[in-house]
Amino acid sequence: MKKQITLFTVCCSIIQFVFAQSPQTLKVQEYTRKNATPLVREYMEFLAIPNVANDEEGIKKNTAFIMNMMTKGGIEGVQLLTPTTPGAPPVVYGEVKVPNAKKTLVFYAHYDGQPVNPKQWAKGLSPYDPIVYSGAIEDGGAPIIFPPEKAVIEPNWRIYCRSSSDDKAGVFAILKAYEAIKKNDFKLSYNLKFFFEGEEEAGSPHLDEILKKYSSLLESDLWIICDGPVHQSGKKQIAFGVRGDAHIDLTVFASKRPLHSGHYGNWSPNPAMMLAKLLSSMKDESGRVTIKGFYDDVIPLTPLEQKTLSEVPSVDEQMKNELGIKDVEMPGSSLSEVLMLPSLNINGMQSGNVGKMASNQIPTYANAVIDLRLVLGNDWQRQQQKVISHIRSQGYYVIDHDPTDAERKEHGKIAKVISGTDGYNAQRTSLDLPIAQQVINAVKSTTKDQVIVQPSMGGSLPLFLFEKYLNAKTITAPIANHDNNQHAENENIKIKNLFDGIETMTALMTIK
Amino acid sequence: MKKQITLFTVCCSIIQFVFAQSPQTLKVQEYTRKNATPLVREYMEFLAIPNVANDEEGIKKNTAFIMNMMTKGGIEGVQLLTPTTPGAPPVVYGEVKVPNAKKTLVFYAHYDGQPVNPKQWAKGLSPYDPIVYSGAIEDGGAPIIFPPEKAVIEPNWRIYCRSSSDDKAGVFAILKAYEAIKKNDFKLSYNLKFFFEGEEEAGSPHLDEILKKYSSLLESDLWIICDGPVHQSGKKQIAFGVRGDAHIDLTVFASKRPLHSGHYGNWSPNPAMMLAKLLSSMKDESGRVTIKGFYDDVIPLTPLEQKTLSEVPSVDEQMKNELGIKDVEMPGSSLSEVLMLPSLNINGMQSGNVGKMASNQIPTYANAVIDLRLVLGNDWQRQQQKVISHIRSQGYYVIDHDPTDAERKEHGKIAKVISGTDGYNAQRTSLDLPIAQQVINAVKSTTKDQVIVQPSMGGSLPLFLFEKYLNAKTITAPIANHDNNQHAENENIKIKNLFDGIETMTALMTIK
Repeated sequence: MKKQITLFTVCCSIIQFVFAQSPQTLKVQEYTRKNATPLVREYMEFLAIPNVANDEEGIKKNTAFIMNMMTKGGIEGVQLLTPTTPGAPPVVYGEVKVPNAKKTLVFYAHYDGQPVNPKQWAKGLSPYDPIVYSGAIEDGGAPIIFPPEKAVIEPNWRIYCRSSSDDKAGVFAILKAYEAIKKNDFKLSYNLKFFFEGEEEAGSPHLDEILKKYSSLLESDLWIICDGPVHQSGKKQIAFGVRGDAHIDLTVFASKRPLHSGHYGNWSPNPAMMLAKLLSSMKDESGRVTIKGFYDDVIPLTPLEQKTLSEVPSVDEQMKNELGIKDVEMPGSSLSEVLMLPSLNINGMQSGNVGKMASNQIPTYANAVIDLRLVLGNDWQRQQQKVISHIRSQGYYVIDHDPTDAERKEHGKIAKVISGTDGYNAQRTSLDLPIAQQVINAVKSTTKDQVIVQPSMGGSLPLFLFEKYLNAKTITAPIANHDNNQHAENENIKIKNLFDGIETMTALMTIK
Repeated sequence: MKKQITLFTVCCSIIQFVFAQSPQTLKVQEYTRKNATPLVREYMEFLAIPNVANDEEGIKKNTAFIMNMMTKGGIEGVQLLTPTTPGAPPVVYGEVKVPNAKKTLVFYAHYDGQPVNPKQWAKGLSPYDPIVYSGAIEDGGAPIIFPPEKAVIEPNWRIYCRSSSDDKAGVFAILKAYEAIKKNDFKLSYNLKFFFEGEEEAGSPHLDEILKKYSSLLESDLWIICDGPVHQSGKKQIAFGVRGDAHIDLTVFASKRPLHSGHYGNWSPNPAMMLAKLLSSMKDESGRVTIKGFYDDVIPLTPLEQKTLSEVPSVDEQMKNELGIKDVEMPGSSLSEVLMLPSLNINGMQSGNVGKMASNQIPTYANAVIDLRLVLGNDWQRQQQKVISHIRSQGYYVIDHDPTDAERKEHGKIAKVISGTDGYNAQRTSLDLPIAQQVINAVKSTTKDQVIVQPSMGGSLPLFLFEKYLNAKTITAPIANHDNNQHAENENIKIKNLFDGIETMTALMTIK
């Protein structure tokens, strides 16, 4: 990346965005157009800092980078909010006090990212080495050599890097929106607070501590959460809720030592087959989770939420086409509908070796990581317990450690289950809230398109914690392109979305 | 290893074996006792050479090492037998012509080993860095510092290294047996030929070429195959057959790009779940393969084979205890019985990431390697086809490549199936063969214990090829300890088994 950045020239800075909306939005567009090159360069510097929550050194570098941006941008009270647990990633905080303002907005994003497996990234990509491509790699996008011949940064270019969309884009868009406000002297009616979390992708295990410890500092009228993608149609969206999330790490065991599949095949249990049977018992052919009571706690949508949901345009056919999927998991239900239900997904599954390292053995264990998404009404620990009860119902003896010899003697089927402690519940803010319409109108002022209002997003954020510890309201305004490969290899952000995001955040900061 | 070898001293060479048998066997024991240190040192040098069949450089070093041993040992006509396919690992060949001998024995072992995943090996072990341990690691065995205080090499010590049992032990025991014969001037009645294969673990894909090309050189009355473990009871065994082997590499596909499990969970198919369902459809709860016709071709044992099988002592309880298994895969059937049936085993299974690299995604594909063991009557390609038909019967469109966009549009369930071309059929030599009793008696002369006669072993060797191309008879005389972790991490050999093996091979070379 470094080489490319040095080749970046200030001359290549005309952005060809065609949308035109409120006068303020037009001014922000002009600002991002004129400063496209330094903006992209600065963003790539930010992206190049590794940011997995347990990487203490990387986290420190990220917080330093963000604090520097904030201080340079004229934000006051820049500081780290630390949890009571030592060593956990801090929140980067700052504020803008507006004379005579009685109300306060908090802008949230997170600067940490999902873990990466560099081997899975496309050739030429490296998770923390941001590279600009002329488009999506799968559509034939190619790396851009700087300075580009046309000396123009195209809005459809993409920056490939871990967290380019999730969620350094949020941090960057928020801070650059405030920069645009300062440069343009836009009027603020609300006090602003900035809150950048550092372990969202690890399940926000210490967010509660921070919210409790700094509850008076964090008083507000509304939190604006900048995380996640815009609608698959490309239209901007505002979400009034998120699904919750919880994990189960599941391991089943066979022989204590790996066995030759010839000398023991048919006799020793095969843990991969055991795991396959156990996992497949959790869902039926129609994609419904068969675990007892899995859907029991779900609180149905209100009539207003149902009406709002019905206005979300269908993208099912577009997405099937884009993703190469013929049959969806729950046939007959739309994407919008199924995201209003709890889900069970296998994030990863492993036993023995495949590919060149495969050998003729019966492995000793098989492991899967299960992701549970939750909706309003579900309790994350109760949901985990339902899965555990199901595992027991399949004849497994459930333990939280590798089995002892005594346990192996006693039980034919043994499952080690680690219930992730990183779970949290879903959250939904009422669509009837007075400030809701102001937020919707602010986003509308930035686009000629429909603004999509979602009663809830499919993704997860620990928003219930804000409700629980601060009694705060939250509304989510995502900015990333929907095809950003969030959480996976080849994560990227379209430059158009990054700059549109700055417009959206500016509009939200300046609501009356 | 090197460091330890230099510390090896010639003084530590008293072997405490307590068995005493035929005078010849006692002399061989005396020979291995006196030379224990140089024998173990030389074997460790041999083990330290990497030997995966596709590692051309490693294969070359192995053949050079073996040829050197043979030439130094007075074996004649030492040469490489090369297949017609260029670049494939050669056989190392040599012979001993005995004046007036009219009959010929060929001794077979293979010098290549299974692929390794070094990460899976126990702490302190490295696949090609042989280390001597005081016992099995799982039983508290510790690395031996040379020279040991007592200046004695204990028979229960183990050498940990890839191929220490499978099957460099075979190569080494055969060559050292001939060395013992020379040093002791034992009388030979048969001509001897030595045949060391270099790609058995890759499925012997070019063995047919070699057997055809060198058919007159390889004329014989019997092949003695030295590969595999002795009986789990510790008793020596002779096997009159082996299972065949074939593979299926199976991949199922979901979205073209990895998806956020929040934004698409419940909507996008999950390939790990698809694979789990597909695999679990292949076996029922009683361990029987449910694939149509899977057991149809099996040729039943003859009455003599059945009687012989019934005399094999049961080790089921011992093995369950040793391996930490309570319930076997096919309840009610003994290990001896189930090895007489074809089997289906998952060697490896993978989708997305587990452990620290797990992330909240829906993976794009899931992959499994399936190992099929075959018995007499099964044809390896027909057995593969049965599995493929089963995959089709589960609604899958079967292809041999990653799906195209057009195929994705057309088919909801797509499976890429690579039918391994490394398969071969089972083989069984008749127990009625006149030379059979001579072989059994020779092994009996080396031990006070029962010698176990197996109509067939569970493991596989491409013995049907010897039958097909040379019209040759084969009998297998394995030597490794049963708990050698063959094909898996932490492979090892007990020094007692290595030395016992030399006695067995000596007895077989000197049959009248």
